[in-house]
Amino acid sequence: MATETSGTGETEIEQARRIIQEHQEQYSSPFSTRYGSKEMRRIWSRRNYWDTNARIWVEIARAQSQAGLVTPEQVADLDNHKRGLDVDEIDSREMDRTNPKYTGHDGLAGISVFKDSAPIGGPVIHRGCTTEDPFSNTEGLLIKDSLGLVEVKLRSVLAGSADAIDKTKDLVVMGWTHLQGAEPTTMGYRLARYGQDFLLDLMYLKFLQRNLRGKGIKGAVGTSASFTELLEKTGMSAEEHEKRVMDALGLEPVLISGQTYPRKFTFLTIASLAMIAQTAYNFAADVKILQSSGFGEIAEPRAKKDIGSSAMPFKRNPRHSENIKSLARGLATNIMRAWMDAAEVTLERGLEDSAGKRSYLPESFLAIDEILIRVDSIIRGLEVFPEAIKRNLKNLGTFSATESILMAVCRQGADRQDAHQQLDDHSKAALKAIASGKENPLESLIADDSYFAQYLSKEKVGKIFASVLSHIGDAETRAAKMANLIRERLSNPA
Amino acid sequence: MATETSGTGETEIEQARRIIQEHQEQYSSPFSTRYGSKEMRRIWSRRNYWDTNARIWVEIARAQSQAGLVTPEQVADLDNHKRGLDVDEIDSREMDRTNPKYTGHDGLAGISVFKDSAPIGGPVIHRGCTTEDPFSNTEGLLIKDSLGLVEVKLRSVLAGSADAIDKTKDLVVMGWTHLQGAEPTTMGYRLARYGQDFLLDLMYLKFLQRNLRGKGIKGAVGTSASFTELLEKTGMSAEEHEKRVMDALGLEPVLISGQTYPRKFTFLTIASLAMIAQTAYNFAADVKILQSSGFGEIAEPRAKKDIGSSAMPFKRNPRHSENIKSLARGLATNIMRAWMDAAEVTLERGLEDSAGKRSYLPESFLAIDEILIRVDSIIRGLEVFPEAIKRNLKNLGTFSATESILMAVCRQGADRQDAHQQLDDHSKAALKAIASGKENPLESLIADDSYFAQYLSKEKVGKIFASVLSHIGDAETRAAKMANLIRERLSNPA
Amino acid sequence: MATETSGTGETEIEQARRIIQEHQEQYSSPFSTRYGSKEMRRIWSRRNYWDTNARIWVEIARAQSQAGLVTPEQVADLDNHKRGLDVDEIDSREMDRTNPKYTGHDGLAGISVFKDSAPIGGPVIHRGCTTEDPFSNTEGLLIKDSLGLVEVKLRSVLAGSADAIDKTKDLVVMGWTHLQGAEPTTMGYRLARYGQDFLLDLMYLKFLQRNLRGKGIKGAVGTSASFTELLEKTGMSAEEHEKRVMDALGLEPVLISGQTYPRKFTFLTIASLAMIAQTAYNFAADVKILQSSGFGEIAEPRAKKDIGSSAMPFKRNPRHSENIKSLARGLATNIMRAWMDAAEVTLERGLEDSAGKRSYLPESFLAIDEILIRVDSIIRGLEVFPEAIKRNLKNLGTFSATESILMAVCRQGADRQDAHQQLDDHSKAALKAIASGKENPLESLIADDSYFAQYLSKEKVGKIFASVLSHIGDAETRAAKMANLIRERLSNPA
Amino acid sequence: MATETSGTGETEIEQARRIIQEHQEQYSSPFSTRYGSKEMRRIWSRRNYWDTNARIWVEIARAQSQAGLVTPEQVADLDNHKRGLDVDEIDSREMDRTNPKYTGHDGLAGISVFKDSAPIGGPVIHRGCTTEDPFSNTEGLLIKDSLGLVEVKLRSVLAGSADAIDKTKDLVVMGWTHLQGAEPTTMGYRLARYGQDFLLDLMYLKFLQRNLRGKGIKGAVGTSASFTELLEKTGMSAEEHEKRVMDALGLEPVLISGQTYPRKFTFLTIASLAMIAQTAYNFAADVKILQSSGFGEIAEPRAKKDIGSSAMPFKRNPRHSENIKSLARGLATNIMRAWMDAAEVTLERGLEDSAGKRSYLPESFLAIDEILIRVDSIIRGLEVFPEAIKRNLKNLGTFSATESILMAVCRQGADRQDAHQQLDDHSKAALKAIASGKENPLESLIADDSYFAQYLSKEKVGKIFASVLSHIGDAETRAAKMANLIRERLSNPA
Repeated sequence: MATETSGTGETEIEQARRIIQEHQEQYSSPFSTRYGSKEMRRIWSRRNYWDTNARIWVEIARAQSQAGLVTPEQVADLDNHKRGLDVDEIDSREMDRTNPKYTGHDGLAGISVFKDSAPIGGPVIHRGCTTEDPFSNTEGLLIKDSLGLVEVKLRSVLAGSADAIDKTKDLVVMGWTHLQGAEPTTMGYRLARYGQDFLLDLMYLKFLQRNLRGKGIKGAVGTSASFTELLEKTGMSAEEHEKRVMDALGLEPVLISGQTYPRKFTFLTIASLAMIAQTAYNFAADVKILQSSGFGEIAEPRAKKDIGSSAMPFKRNPRHSENIKSLARGLATNIMRAWMDAAEVTLERGLEDSAGKRSYLPESFLAIDEILIRVDSIIRGLEVFPEAIKRNLKNLGTFSATESILMAVCRQGADRQDAHQQLDDHSKAALKAIASGKENPLESLIADDSYFAQYLSKEKVGKIFASVLSHIGDAETRAAKMANLIRERLSNPA
Repeated sequence: MATETSGTGETEIEQARRIIQEHQEQYSSPFSTRYGSKEMRRIWSRRNYWDTNARIWVEIARAQSQAGLVTPEQVADLDNHKRGLDVDEIDSREMDRTNPKYTGHDGLAGISVFKDSAPIGGPVIHRGCTTEDPFSNTEGLLIKDSLGLVEVKLRSVLAGSADAIDKTKDLVVMGWTHLQGAEPTTMGYRLARYGQDFLLDLMYLKFLQRNLRGKGIKGAVGTSASFTELLEKTGMSAEEHEKRVMDALGLEPVLISGQTYPRKFTFLTIASLAMIAQTAYNFAADVKILQSSGFGEIAEPRAKKDIGSSAMPFKRNPRHSENIKSLARGLATNIMRAWMDAAEVTLERGLEDSAGKRSYLPESFLAIDEILIRVDSIIRGLEVFPEAIKRNLKNLGTFSATESILMAVCRQGADRQDAHQQLDDHSKAALKAIASGKENPLESLIADDSYFAQYLSKEKVGKIFASVLSHIGDAETRAAKMANLIRERLSNPA
Repeated sequence: MATETSGTGETEIEQARRIIQEHQEQYSSPFSTRYGSKEMRRIWSRRNYWDTNARIWVEIARAQSQAGLVTPEQVADLDNHKRGLDVDEIDSREMDRTNPKYTGHDGLAGISVFKDSAPIGGPVIHRGCTTEDPFSNTEGLLIKDSLGLVEVKLRSVLAGSADAIDKTKDLVVMGWTHLQGAEPTTMGYRLARYGQDFLLDLMYLKFLQRNLRGKGIKGAVGTSASFTELLEKTGMSAEEHEKRVMDALGLEPVLISGQTYPRKFTFLTIASLAMIAQTAYNFAADVKILQSSGFGEIAEPRAKKDIGSSAMPFKRNPRHSENIKSLARGLATNIMRAWMDAAEVTLERGLEDSAGKRSYLPESFLAIDEILIRVDSIIRGLEVFPEAIKRNLKNLGTFSATESILMAVCRQGADRQDAHQQLDDHSKAALKAIASGKENPLESLIADDSYFAQYLSKEKVGKIFASVLSHIGDAETRAAKMANLIRERLSNPA
Repeated sequence: MATETSGTGETEIEQARRIIQEHQEQYSSPFSTRYGSKEMRRIWSRRNYWDTNARIWVEIARAQSQAGLVTPEQVADLDNHKRGLDVDEIDSREMDRTNPKYTGHDGLAGISVFKDSAPIGGPVIHRGCTTEDPFSNTEGLLIKDSLGLVEVKLRSVLAGSADAIDKTKDLVVMGWTHLQGAEPTTMGYRLARYGQDFLLDLMYLKFLQRNLRGKGIKGAVGTSASFTELLEKTGMSAEEHEKRVMDALGLEPVLISGQTYPRKFTFLTIASLAMIAQTAYNFAADVKILQSSGFGEIAEPRAKKDIGSSAMPFKRNPRHSENIKSLARGLATNIMRAWMDAAEVTLERGLEDSAGKRSYLPESFLAIDEILIRVDSIIRGLEVFPEAIKRNLKNLGTFSATESILMAVCRQGADRQDAHQQLDDHSKAALKAIASGKENPLESLIADDSYFAQYLSKEKVGKIFASVLSHIGDAETRAAKMANLIRERLSNPA
């Protein structure tokens, strides 16, 4: 709290009440409290932001002490004060023109507060640096940590998927194209499709993690000119200085930079998150349809206390799925912003990325975090309604016998297109009958038709219709393979 | 504050410290403190959100009391308690499963807190309503108020533009196409171009304001069925009930709705803001170039204490312009989100808009608010550097005499394309000379050329080159007309 | 055809075969043949592009003849040759470096071909102009004509909507929120929602048409400097020169321009089309769901010869709806391109809009054209399946009695939230029963419950359940009002 | 040509003239003739599309002949007729309702034409298949081939970059941040930044190529049900059948599919191309600025015949750079479309991707093709103007001595922030002097200041200012390393 410095004469409790009131009377982002995990919110907090910058300043001082430019006492003092900088005071020195230590610049505000709190090491903070030496690498570290958190959650979704696939790999369900009943498939095979996509998302995420680099410690335009001079005659090169700092931070530097880390990494990060969000959206959109009153085959898990709607207590709303879709759209459009920011850096740097990135970078991580939490809970708690599945298979699956009939007559030498036309006519008649409430008459329409009698006995026709529910090819085998493939990949840490 | 209800045994000061700490350890949006005006942040605060909902609940109760369903005492009680609902407690009852009054639903949480605070009127709150009866209209009112605030700021930018145009309407400057010196224009004429665009933006904003409608009071699927029943035999129709409430709120209802107000209005709102942002971006991008070291003709106003960069104290960064561009990109991509949300409502409603709209709607208003504040300050405080303007005119403007030469020889009967080719050759030679440090030799190259001698005397050629700085057509007149047009439109309130 | 000029010794038939082959061996856009009407494709053809430019050149010459700079014979000659310029030769002179008249510039290529075909007027073409004098106004005219075509089609969709609303205004159907059965509405009321949106789209379109302006005739940087000089001592001002030309073209000029017409108009045009596409998408997405095997209430009209799928002859695919959604997505993302192009004009002009606009502008019009054709055919030919509608109402509509029950007990003094909880419990039990194949037991669960017995007799409960299908409030009245409102607006030409 | 089948009585020459006229009177995409290479246009031609489908049908028949279902004669007949299908007739049978063989379906139209041309093999075409068996794999093959072409061009750009970096690695130029002169860097170091980004783009492209999969041969909903039945008792499994076909095609199949190949691959493809376009945009935007009249340090190569502008012959427009930026924006927004299409597949498939993909997939490849051609030509032919570079260094580079001064006084024990403030004051004074036409007085201002005299002798100050042009740290070394790294990566085929 900015108690001491504000000098307003407020007591602590007055100040606290004022701050709480302010928080009620200003816009508050849903990503501050509503979406995302506590861990992810912590990564993107002001506390962690300044803690990380301070850590970098300490490592820079440490490297410079190894070059003899800074004393061990100074490093130790900085090290002792690097945690818990007064972040409200930093904000105040940046933005509050009434603050006597106002700087109008976030970097200088941070340096100034750190310096005040570390009287011995303070004077050597930030030597040779431009603001983006600490800031860029802080952002790099936050991205790295966040990607790690995303990976953990994505792996959990995949593990849950593998189990769900295995459990339902032989559960025959209607397959749908254009939202029309098509041919049967199995639920596990369908789930394996999302699993396959999530696995590809994981591969891209890992690829990004392997290739992600920080700015390093390269000064104002990336040439390390200031460090080259600062380190002159110390026997330490700018490159070695950079290496020491970055090794300590655990972040590999790029070879070449402008003033900041390459903005292409921001783009790649958002693109990677948006890829995951894409699979999640696809999954959620399908859940919403299958959970609809019209399909009714599955449902999201629902906590006991959950309420459908204030006016319609009976509703079973796919609230997680709709929420996932909503958040995912934000990730999709954030790709565009990140693209623009990376596509127009303006020589050694422009500031066009700055204001935007302050929200879209953290919020992209918080959104994917929330999305994965919800996908995980759906995939692990999915309710399945076998009665509805059977009803849909019976009403619509019957039609898919036409494909087997088509195959069978073709094997007997029929012309494919002629047969197709005949089946089309009978199907239309059957649909009409069903619409008027009758039972699906398709089997007898075909069995009694002299065209088909040329190629197939009534008995054969009957057999084909009977077997329609097992007309699922190798869906089960392939679903099982995918579950195994997922588990195999998950056991591989790289 | 949730002091009483939280039941944690914390003292108020302990609680306050905890809350402050939480705010440091969670993500905090730049739109909570950094961008946008206090007024705009207040509109989109939790406080105003619930105050507005409460106001709607009161008006609904009042209308129902006029139908005899609610007593005047109940209305009075609600009216007395409608301001200052405990918003932290509402959040808690929605989201905190340990709260004994947990609802898991924001609407029910709000009702529950309002009810607790108004013991007499409480039981009649929300009668006949679905959550979106208060919520949709609250959002409509917030949008309406925000558009009003945007209008005020846009009008200020336009007024500032008119003055700036007038002041510089006859200041001859180099005109640039493809960032190449082209022909002279005037600074006021250029500013009039942004002014013309902002004026069009204002017309669209006003058009939206005239056409904006709220949901009205229509229940779960827009049919007013619940109100029709509730009001049965009271002599008041659902339509009259709606009219009373909406008249009191000052928001006209749509004729037809689903569960919510038409999402097309969200799209139109964002599109209108993004249009303004587009003009601002164009203006800011041009300022950045003209302020660059290479052009140097103008500069954003700069406060005394402003700092260029921590490592390079001499820099004169176009920080407002870059910030405007950054925020504007967010508005541009928000159009896409709003488009998607309006394009897939899913019959009487889906929830895909919900999570997204919680941030992109307020933040779009806060972003445009910040953008307009900065544009306003630039346009009113723009510094102009006449020396640099003259240097650019001299170096590059000379070339634009070629166009007058072209006109002159054509008037004398020369073939346009032949003359064009000749001028092209001389221009290339002149550019080469300049690149090697010599003075621009273009005039003598043309004056001494026998081809041109057919049509123009040396004297005439000299006159044309001399007049090049006044080669600005009707730029001044038109700029003045635009300044007047802006003022005329601003004086028209509609 | 480029027969004469190509000088390759090909016979005409050889050349024709070559051209046809080339068209098979290069990429061919679906917008050349597949999507959009013939009229819209004609507007955006090379033929019409050059015809329109030629028309502008003629009007410029005519205005200049009125100023005495050009002879009537020259104007007449240009007028006689303005139609049917050899567009393949223009392309060749722009792009084919082996063409002896190669220019490398589309404007010069057009001028050169026009000049060759009009030996008397040729030399005076394009006097005082920059390429964007003809080009910008040509684009303005194409946009204007295209918007007119869009308006015609949108009005047809609205007229069809009004009829469809009237026809189904009292057809009770299940209303759905979150794809869960909610409360009944009427089909006409639902259609009125799309109609209301399309009406708003029409209002925006008309607003754009009223505000659309062309560049006018203002030269290289918008100052009319070249025309001011050209017209010196003729007694005609540059402004009057512009007015004569633009009046003849039927396009009002902007007051201020850079080299081109303001790119904001491109943005507004695309935004207006994307708005229409948004309503169409929403409509199509709903049709797809309601046509799905799970809902089955309606279907797109289908031509006799239409085929569902090559493998599954029985399918009734919502092909028009899916096509509409697909094309609409392109319009949505084109907003972003147009935004970028308008947001970065780069002082008096940059060329960043050029390559992109060559495809996204025509294709946006062709896409909306196709979309409106398909929406029109669906809305006018929509098949309705009353049996499926009844089935859905029976299965799910029963639940909506809970809202009436809630209203009724509240009127009798029950606490809203308590009652809500009770109904929630019973609804869950009923859903469970239905899932296991039983009949919806909700009515008896409530009728037999002592809590509800406090407020309602069994008889009353029975009455409420019986009336559930008429629980549609004022849906019919409002739907009829919307149909009338649409017709009223359509009868208004402005 | 559709000569025989059209039956209109037209002679060939009449028909040819009609077709040519049609091509002039309909919209023609700039990607048909203007942008992209001939090779890329050929890949996405109708000719190649149907040739590829035919190739797949042949391989399916061949696999089925190995299972004994088809005779070798039938395979041979198909093989003999697979090239040169009459693509105009296919279009006609799909779309022209007056064609007696009209199908209304592109798949059936293709089958029908292939069948007519191969009387022996015709009847066995497409056995067991759904349309997406050939179509999806055709698209997969076109993507694969196109990615190969992109890779070749990207490698050329990288090779050209490595040379350009080497050539200019020690050419000191002004570095710019916020378009303000910052500190010197080298041109090669700057070019190395784009090179580094292009290298990352190549790595992502290769990663995609390694992970790209086709649909395989899996029938209507991905279960291979139809093939399982067709191959019953033949001893060949559906999986083996798929393997034979896909091996012959050279495209690895996914394990799991819906009706089509996973749309995530479309997204990844577009994203990969948009990544390259992003680097190209950044490069082009920087070229445009550096080529501007205000900066003037470099220029795009220009062919002799190139023309600046029709009215302003002297212009040196960055037409390639502006064109690159324009095309790149289209790729950026195509990411959004591809995202939407992949995010909403609708269970086993929806058709929402279809109409859109017909244009955005080919055009994305054609756009990146054009972009890379132009980047390649710029990077290899970039003109450099040493005089302008020196002028900018002299005017602005002087300021960057302040950073060295700052370092030097800090090394002597000065407080960093105090020194920063002093330098800031002197810089402002110097800027003022320059603006009024004087020489940069910064050196003497500092040398004469008693504050700095505490730490530095005048001599030292003079030395620092003298060395400013070599204040480039390790830019040269790192640039050289990047050139080597690029060459090393290029020599690695994987």
